[in-house]
Amino acid sequence: MKVLVIHGPNLNMLGKRDPAIYGERTLEDVNSFVSSYFKKVELEFFQSNIEGDIINKIQQADGLFSGIVLNAGAFTHYSYAIRDAIEAVSIPVVEVHISNTAAREEFRHTSVIAPVVMGSIAGLGAYSYVLAVQGIAHHSKRKK
Amino acid sequence: MKVLVIHGPNLNMLGKRDPAIYGERTLEDVNSFVSSYFKKVELEFFQSNIEGDIINKIQQADGLFSGIVLNAGAFTHYSYAIRDAIEAVSIPVVEVHISNTAAREEFRHTSVIAPVVMGSIAGLGAYSYVLAVQGIAHHSKRKK
Amino acid sequence: MKVLVIHGPNLNMLGKRDPAIYGERTLEDVNSFVSSYFKKVELEFFQSNIEGDIINKIQQADGLFSGIVLNAGAFTHYSYAIRDAIEAVSIPVVEVHISNTAAREEFRHTSVIAPVVMGSIAGLGAYSYVLAVQGIAHHSKRKK
Amino acid sequence: MKVLVIHGPNLNMLGKRDPAIYGERTLEDVNSFVSSYFKKVELEFFQSNIEGDIINKIQQADGLFSGIVLNAGAFTHYSYAIRDAIEAVSIPVVEVHISNTAAREEFRHTSVIAPVVMGSIAGLGAYSYVLAVQGIAHHSKRKK
Amino acid sequence: MKVLVIHGPNLNMLGKRDPAIYGERTLEDVNSFVSSYFKKVELEFFQSNIEGDIINKIQQADGLFSGIVLNAGAFTHYSYAIRDAIEAVSIPVVEVHISNTAAREEFRHTSVIAPVVMGSIAGLGAYSYVLAVQGIAHHSKRKK
Amino acid sequence: MKVLVIHGPNLNMLGKRDPAIYGERTLEDVNSFVSSYFKKVELEFFQSNIEGDIINKIQQADGLFSGIVLNAGAFTHYSYAIRDAIEAVSIPVVEVHISNTAAREEFRHTSVIAPVVMGSIAGLGAYSYVLAVQGIAHHSKRKK
Amino acid sequence: MKVLVIHGPNLNMLGKRDPAIYGERTLEDVNSFVSSYFKKVELEFFQSNIEGDIINKIQQADGLFSGIVLNAGAFTHYSYAIRDAIEAVSIPVVEVHISNTAAREEFRHTSVIAPVVMGSIAGLGAYSYVLAVQGIAHHSKRKK
Amino acid sequence: MKVLVIHGPNLNMLGKRDPAIYGERTLEDVNSFVSSYFKKVELEFFQSNIEGDIINKIQQADGLFSGIVLNAGAFTHYSYAIRDAIEAVSIPVVEVHISNTAAREEFRHTSVIAPVVMGSIAGLGAYSYVLAVQGIAHHSKRKK
Amino acid sequence: MKVLVIHGPNLNMLGKRDPAIYGERTLEDVNSFVSSYFKKVELEFFQSNIEGDIINKIQQADGLFSGIVLNAGAFTHYSYAIRDAIEAVSIPVVEVHISNTAAREEFRHTSVIAPVVMGSIAGLGAYSYVLAVQGIAHHSKRKK
Amino acid sequence: MKVLVIHGPNLNMLGKRDPAIYGERTLEDVNSFVSSYFKKVELEFFQSNIEGDIINKIQQADGLFSGIVLNAGAFTHYSYAIRDAIEAVSIPVVEVHISNTAAREEFRHTSVIAPVVMGSIAGLGAYSYVLAVQGIAHHSKRKK
Amino acid sequence: MKVLVIHGPNLNMLGKRDPAIYGERTLEDVNSFVSSYFKKVELEFFQSNIEGDIINKIQQADGLFSGIVLNAGAFTHYSYAIRDAIEAVSIPVVEVHISNTAAREEFRHTSVIAPVVMGSIAGLGAYSYVLAVQGIAHHSKRKK
Amino acid sequence: MKVLVIHGPNLNMLGKRDPAIYGERTLEDVNSFVSSYFKKVELEFFQSNIEGDIINKIQQADGLFSGIVLNAGAFTHYSYAIRDAIEAVSIPVVEVHISNTAAREEFRHTSVIAPVVMGSIAGLGAYSYVLAVQGIAHHSKRKK
Repeated sequence: MKVLVIHGPNLNMLGKRDPAIYGERTLEDVNSFVSSYFKKVELEFFQSNIEGDIINKIQQADGLFSGIVLNAGAFTHYSYAIRDAIEAVSIPVVEVHISNTAAREEFRHTSVIAPVVMGSIAGLGAYSYVLAVQGIAHHSKRKK
Repeated sequence: MKVLVIHGPNLNMLGKRDPAIYGERTLEDVNSFVSSYFKKVELEFFQSNIEGDIINKIQQADGLFSGIVLNAGAFTHYSYAIRDAIEAVSIPVVEVHISNTAAREEFRHTSVIAPVVMGSIAGLGAYSYVLAVQGIAHHSKRKK
Repeated sequence: MKVLVIHGPNLNMLGKRDPAIYGERTLEDVNSFVSSYFKKVELEFFQSNIEGDIINKIQQADGLFSGIVLNAGAFTHYSYAIRDAIEAVSIPVVEVHISNTAAREEFRHTSVIAPVVMGSIAGLGAYSYVLAVQGIAHHSKRKK
Repeated sequence: MKVLVIHGPNLNMLGKRDPAIYGERTLEDVNSFVSSYFKKVELEFFQSNIEGDIINKIQQADGLFSGIVLNAGAFTHYSYAIRDAIEAVSIPVVEVHISNTAAREEFRHTSVIAPVVMGSIAGLGAYSYVLAVQGIAHHSKRKK
Repeated sequence: MKVLVIHGPNLNMLGKRDPAIYGERTLEDVNSFVSSYFKKVELEFFQSNIEGDIINKIQQADGLFSGIVLNAGAFTHYSYAIRDAIEAVSIPVVEVHISNTAAREEFRHTSVIAPVVMGSIAGLGAYSYVLAVQGIAHHSKRKK
Repeated sequence: MKVLVIHGPNLNMLGKRDPAIYGERTLEDVNSFVSSYFKKVELEFFQSNIEGDIINKIQQADGLFSGIVLNAGAFTHYSYAIRDAIEAVSIPVVEVHISNTAAREEFRHTSVIAPVVMGSIAGLGAYSYVLAVQGIAHHSKRKK
Repeated sequence: MKVLVIHGPNLNMLGKRDPAIYGERTLEDVNSFVSSYFKKVELEFFQSNIEGDIINKIQQADGLFSGIVLNAGAFTHYSYAIRDAIEAVSIPVVEVHISNTAAREEFRHTSVIAPVVMGSIAGLGAYSYVLAVQGIAHHSKRKK
Repeated sequence: MKVLVIHGPNLNMLGKRDPAIYGERTLEDVNSFVSSYFKKVELEFFQSNIEGDIINKIQQADGLFSGIVLNAGAFTHYSYAIRDAIEAVSIPVVEVHISNTAAREEFRHTSVIAPVVMGSIAGLGAYSYVLAVQGIAHHSKRKK
Repeated sequence: MKVLVIHGPNLNMLGKRDPAIYGERTLEDVNSFVSSYFKKVELEFFQSNIEGDIINKIQQADGLFSGIVLNAGAFTHYSYAIRDAIEAVSIPVVEVHISNTAAREEFRHTSVIAPVVMGSIAGLGAYSYVLAVQGIAHHSKRKK
Repeated sequence: MKVLVIHGPNLNMLGKRDPAIYGERTLEDVNSFVSSYFKKVELEFFQSNIEGDIINKIQQADGLFSGIVLNAGAFTHYSYAIRDAIEAVSIPVVEVHISNTAAREEFRHTSVIAPVVMGSIAGLGAYSYVLAVQGIAHHSKRKK
Repeated sequence: MKVLVIHGPNLNMLGKRDPAIYGERTLEDVNSFVSSYFKKVELEFFQSNIEGDIINKIQQADGLFSGIVLNAGAFTHYSYAIRDAIEAVSIPVVEVHISNTAAREEFRHTSVIAPVVMGSIAGLGAYSYVLAVQGIAHHSKRKK
Repeated sequence: MKVLVIHGPNLNMLGKRDPAIYGERTLEDVNSFVSSYFKKVELEFFQSNIEGDIINKIQQADGLFSGIVLNAGAFTHYSYAIRDAIEAVSIPVVEVHISNTAAREEFRHTSVIAPVVMGSIAGLGAYSYVLAVQGIAHHSKRKK
């Protein structure tokens, strides 16, 4: 089983930006932390600040991965193009957020991708990614 | 470690209501399913259709449980009183939903309790509860 | 044929509250008035000021009654939990109001339960209940 | 006792349009169906696709009928001119809808005539008309 | 002269919850504090987390008390049912809040009961209750 | 100099409808009252409940009259078609209202024709028409 | 008969500001123009850029004048204090605007004083004032 | 193949009204211009300023024409009755506009008929009609 | 202890304006009435219809008074400048209203100064001022 | 004559995504289909998921092409940057959509580019592109 | 070259109010600080808490100054009268704010004067004034 | 001291696009113009039409530059991703606009980056950039 983990814009700044909100782990730390939980699931990590690159990555994942864990960063709040990409692929996508976005600025309360993902997990720090991978793994097994 | 799982209004109808959305498991089935994942975490389950009873339960849990997994059902969308109860206790609360509420009716897109919970998990069926308990367990260990 | 008539919050104050709007009949008078119209339909009346009790009553009615006549009072305008209860049962529900709610305060113009009931009747005084019971009876016969 | 039944725009298409929503009866069938319920009430039926004709009809009915049963069709949602006509006559008007408009498109949730009618009945099929006539008859007797 | 003081949801947590906002007094302390100001006014205190119980209490107070001091807690912001209960009784109700709700979260800026109370007092801590009782006493004397 | 006075829907009910708002004069009385003020201005009066007839009348008036005094009744609030007709002719139109529409129901506060008329006069009873005719006469002379 | 004409903020700039909208007459020209129409009505003119001075003037006019013609300028759109002053006096006020405010910027479409004046006249240039004085004179005579 | 072309309110003023927006062709010119493009498609043209007449025409076209090209003029923005007529017939309707309505006044940005037509074409002048007829012809052939 | 009482615009009309809402006492009567309750608190009264004068007064009071009782009249609803003045001084301000503003026109439901005052009291007539002075006195003592 | 056809994000998924909405043709099929209609017009096709690439392409087309046919996909609903690019070039742009966007999700009803294009065509499947090219060709000839 | 610097309401409290936001300089300090930057530009400073005085000052400046630097304080957010004054003069006005208003309370995000000024500068402390004077000087030279 | 100047989408079209709004200078002209003002500040210029490239550039500037002058073009109005990038770096950012965006289309009135920048300057043409660089230089010196 392979799962793709996509980090959206500015997540390459993890550990440097707002440690009070996002913690002190760098993106590499987060990836290692998540990987440490899974032996039987192969994880691939991808980060980009370019909306179109994330769209391309989602499209290419179709058929190659069991699912996608997507932290779309600020694109969460306005990228209808990423939303369409999620709808266009047949594998499940789970939306994750490190912080509890509902407790932050108003604009972070709206997710334009939420209506087309399988589920979403927010507020549990880097552990949100771990749970999201588990969710995809669980879902994947049930379908077989 | 003890975790309290609260089911809000109409969740006692699980298995009878909208199987297409909520699946065919009854509430007892869900509770058993969740319990089957945990050996070292003691789980207590509670269901009520009365808002005030849920508030009482949240208040009483403070200090006795490591955290609360709360599916507030339709109260999610308007019960500021439950929100205040969550704020009034010092243990973490994780909000769960069986279905992906963002993909359903407009009124289900707003959660008035989201800003005061630790995190939220939606759309992964009964497995949402399992991940939520894990989230509380993970959080609990880090604090020690 | 059995029909359940549910009166929501403050309807126990009928005859005492705003006679100009609700008339001078007490709740008992209304129940008698409605009963006087039906010989072949068995009517059960229920009143509560507690949202959760109404939810319980709706759930329990499923299968035992041919339908429910529901005047949800002020719960009409915000109780998504009652709405979910209506959706969770398979018998028809007809929403009634004694006064013409559209001619009163702004907040009374919205019914959160209207989208899930079979139909609604408003503004015809206590006679609204009579027509609602007829509506359920008519509907019930057609299905057989 | 005489009651005027007015059918608004496109109701002449009944039976042809959206049978899933409006049923398979033609407008003539509906009129016959309604008439079959009343022996002592004289019914007159009128249909027009022209807003001004409906206004004229309402104005002319004043004093000649005990009341009006009005299904204003799509005019329900924007014709303030029909609203003014209803206010300008002294006989009661009951608004009816065949389908449960609250369960359909957003624009059908608003009735600009609702604040000036005596009452409204929706969602009970052609039987809505029957109940509306009864409502007017009941109201008429009480006034004497 | 008798005055009823009603505390709404979560006010039983006073002293434990957000001392920065609500102070360190428990509900019992508040009740004693308020009582200490009045010798000629008999005070009865009531607290509940259940909306329907508060409605019942308001209804029962009619005729037995000179007025009600009501801190409806979070119900303030959505309970149209409590609003209707206040309208249904003939004794005056004064709305109180310990904190200045206008300076807190957006949802606390709206009071659905404000249009039907005699007056409201907010932001003066437990002393808000004292002033409210005085207000009722003053009003009561003037009417005689 | 010729001026066309157009009365919109339900103004044929003047004297019968809401005398408290519109006065006790019938439409004929109003026309006579207005005519009595002008010796050198030829007035033509037109009333219709049909939006399209009013549009036709406005179009035909172009070139034959010095201006139009238009009380569009309830069409004022939604008839963008009448608005377009006004824009399509080159003679000035003055909007009039007998009552002060700003002091009445919310929907009467919006005039969709106001942005395309030369001016508007409201709230001065039948005398509003007199002033509107004067306004057109004054405007007409200045252009010569 | 005495009528008070009040010009609000920036009307002292008439003739200098936006001649395309307001014409080339100065405020003195406008006053002379208006005066030239009336022999039996005594006119007093007042202009101020200070909201409170206009309030004072309105209050003092009560009982001394038959009515007030008020062009509140930009205060029209937000001065609830002027609105209250108008409500507080017993003589009629007619609102005037030189230009057709409905055809200009969005914020000029709302008049917070409109609901409390007797009537309003807009878009007819300086002649708007003439008609407003006539309106007050007409109204004044009818009351006697 | 027969196609019905319906022109809504004020389109009979083409050539006279706002040539900068609509061009200098009269309605007859437009009809000739469109006809000149089609040899194998029989075109019928209809214009009315009366909403109900357009509804009647749409209803009558059902079965007699392959489709309807509809420029509903200002009715586009509020006539839910025309919308219902379009839904009630089984032949395709293509919405056209001569000008680019999205570049004009705010109220022209909303089309209440757009959700029920097959497609829409705007901004290409009289040539919009030509393309719309082609669209219907293309669609018609594919279905055979 | 000294307390400043500020009356905003049109409160100098008390007793003349809307006695049904504000009572029959003049402003002088109100001031005497309030003074009669306090022996140990020195009261200074100030009234102005000019927003800037009220700002000046608030600024000058800083350090000289223990607190300010402010009835800002209609300025309550839009004067962000008064709000800033309140924020700029270090003494507490209590907002008062004679009537229950929440039960009146929509625009009176918003107070732009409420978020920066210590507390607010409304609806208890002239007695509102008495309670507000007490509130400041109580607060003042606690700080010592 | 040369025309540039730009396909926005996710249109490279045509034929794979939602065939019920977009049909079963791949993007290459669509391009061939469109090309088959034109002999005298040279067509260039371009697709990208990257907003900035589309902006670059539009800028570069200026002067080289007679016009642009643009299906901006989801960028239609929020890319003000593409809107600015369209405004910055002097050749005409026609907006196309394969499906009838007005009949789909709410967010698809708004086009931020519509106010700056020459015209728009929606809902006619791949044939929308054909008509758009014709529109540009027609427009191009008229200008010469 | 002469430039007028206008400080609006509460800016006379600089140094006393919210030093965290506005710094510790008094208004006199700010004026000196700004003056120290300019040798060839004559500066006049004016402060008032009265809206009408600011309007008067703006009107009088026309022709006497090369431009106005205006910090309208809270009037920024609602004084359409000041906006009209700016429009009425022919010299350029630059809006300044000491703090970054976009990062503060919601009501400070709207400037009703912004659409009629030449430009605006915010968030750079007292140095905002310096840049604004430079802006006017630069603009002034270019015009010569 | 080094300052980075970032030009967002379509600014490479300067001099070609809307000279009435943006002037006739090309981007190179603007860069030269700005450079001509600074001898001691090293300026680096960057332009891109790709949102992600701008994010990358902002991230890379951290620590290397004293500050960033950012004209985000149309991204100003929706790019929450650029906003997050600004928040993620520790050097100050000053937002600039050549034109007065508040005087243009509605969508240009909202800046989603404004709440996280140090300050903003708009409407002063290319000179806006000069003032912004000065602002950063001034700020930079004060911190040392």
